[in-house]
Amino acid sequence: MPEILAVDLGGTNIRVARFPSAQPPATTHSKTPTRAAEGPEAVIARILQAIESIAPPSRADMRIGIGAPGPLDTRRGVILDAPNLPGWLNLPLRERVADHFGCPVALGNDANLAALAEWRFGAGRGCTELLYLTISTGIGGGVISDGHLLLGAQGLAAELGHMTLLMGGPTCSCGQHGHLEGIASGPAIARRAAERLAAGEASSLRALSTAAEGLTAEAVGQAARQGDTLARLVVDEAAEAIGCHLASLLHAFNPQVVVLGGGVMQIGDLLLPGIEAAMRAQVMHPAFLDGLRIARAQLGEDVGLIGAMALASEL
Amino acid sequence: MPEILAVDLGGTNIRVARFPSAQPPATTHSKTPTRAAEGPEAVIARILQAIESIAPPSRADMRIGIGAPGPLDTRRGVILDAPNLPGWLNLPLRERVADHFGCPVALGNDANLAALAEWRFGAGRGCTELLYLTISTGIGGGVISDGHLLLGAQGLAAELGHMTLLMGGPTCSCGQHGHLEGIASGPAIARRAAERLAAGEASSLRALSTAAEGLTAEAVGQAARQGDTLARLVVDEAAEAIGCHLASLLHAFNPQVVVLGGGVMQIGDLLLPGIEAAMRAQVMHPAFLDGLRIARAQLGEDVGLIGAMALASEL
Repeated sequence: MPEILAVDLGGTNIRVARFPSAQPPATTHSKTPTRAAEGPEAVIARILQAIESIAPPSRADMRIGIGAPGPLDTRRGVILDAPNLPGWLNLPLRERVADHFGCPVALGNDANLAALAEWRFGAGRGCTELLYLTISTGIGGGVISDGHLLLGAQGLAAELGHMTLLMGGPTCSCGQHGHLEGIASGPAIARRAAERLAAGEASSLRALSTAAEGLTAEAVGQAARQGDTLARLVVDEAAEAIGCHLASLLHAFNPQVVVLGGGVMQIGDLLLPGIEAAMRAQVMHPAFLDGLRIARAQLGEDVGLIGAMALASEL
Repeated sequence: MPEILAVDLGGTNIRVARFPSAQPPATTHSKTPTRAAEGPEAVIARILQAIESIAPPSRADMRIGIGAPGPLDTRRGVILDAPNLPGWLNLPLRERVADHFGCPVALGNDANLAALAEWRFGAGRGCTELLYLTISTGIGGGVISDGHLLLGAQGLAAELGHMTLLMGGPTCSCGQHGHLEGIASGPAIARRAAERLAAGEASSLRALSTAAEGLTAEAVGQAARQGDTLARLVVDEAAEAIGCHLASLLHAFNPQVVVLGGGVMQIGDLLLPGIEAAMRAQVMHPAFLDGLRIARAQLGEDVGLIGAMALASEL
């Protein structure tokens, strides 16, 4: 049984964990600020140091799994472009880490790895066809097809938040238009609320829109829970868009389980009824709903580390 | 080497072919009208008879592959619902044919089988990640992922024409809204032209709109080729929608090859430049275009038979 070290590289923190038996829970965790503004070389040095700090004395059978924000070429182990990590362009992170530690290293897209983690150890255990959507600052995805992570030619597949749902619609963080991410991510929900406030609609959110912490999806959710009409409408519109897109994704992938995760699912109690209703209403044939299960992600903030571990365990 | 009999069940014709060496070309072809209005039992009798008529004397190592319009549960071999075949509801076609001939039978969605055929013997030979779109009366799809046909839980996957591109958009043949099929299929192209004519726009197509043969995508293409402005706009809008959706599908599947087939591709010379331009403009990262090849389908009207043969060869 190999000893696995997992790395979750984020724009804010680098998290590492040690999995001596290639399954959760981790025995050791460590977290260090990414300080991305210092550039790739400084961040890579911190990644190597963080791994060193929890590595076992004997590295004979060690493997390392790394999750990082996409798009990345997982087949070659190269980060192509990381919006939250300035200067990371075509960076061969897998090779850099493998050269340092002299052991096998796997690199995966963080949303893909979350799908892998929820499938192996979380809400999707036991199925062979799973669709995972993480709704957060962005919207990412992962697909398990016939018991394997769907990767595509360069490992870029399953960017399920970057698919056009509304031609000519709102601009997405990626610069394109009408993607689900530009309609129903956390920032998109906040923006929709701000637009309605700017149009003069009444809402308890008006005070927040000038406050320091600003308007967030969480604040919109809280107001919706307290009966604010504007907030409720914004939440319902996001749920409708997510449900509509899920119907399309059922047609594309015909999964057994849909797992929904990410920070915006903290208001999942408000979103889920609308998501499910829209999905069921917009499916092309009831057979796509036969035995289908919609589940919330179970693995919490460790999902990225567990996914990186699961990826490395397949090396 | 098993002897394979392939069946292509369509709303108009039942086509059968014999592949003695499990690869194209077929040695014997036969075609008989489906006469779908007579109901499932009559059609099944004709299918069995058509197979009998070309079956080899010895059936010791015979296999049968059947392609049929979706949605169908390919895992159980059941046609769930066939819009062009009245009365075909939850019909266990695979079992019926297997019981009659006492040999292994495989049933597949016709668009999926076309993808399989183009991958094994046509425009996608040699790759492992392929996306196939057939643009015709409907828009169907098929995906090869990691060298396997993407099927999903019940074999319903890859209904790529039934994905929402324009929330609240035109009604699709399936009853839902804003699907690619409702925007860019042959009938949708004809409908867009008719709408512009009804709005009073000038066009050489006006004479056709009252003619017996009516307005078809082919006629729109012909008028566009002759410089008709309305026809050109309609063709360009369809190309834009197809290209936009292809960008989404690149994000979902990250294929090496995109194969475009179906009757509407007879005006492919008019559509393809617009499709490619829209796809390239709307991709979220240039890495998705690295090494990507867009190809026209190569196998012509036998694609369904060749796909059914390829499916049966995997039994």
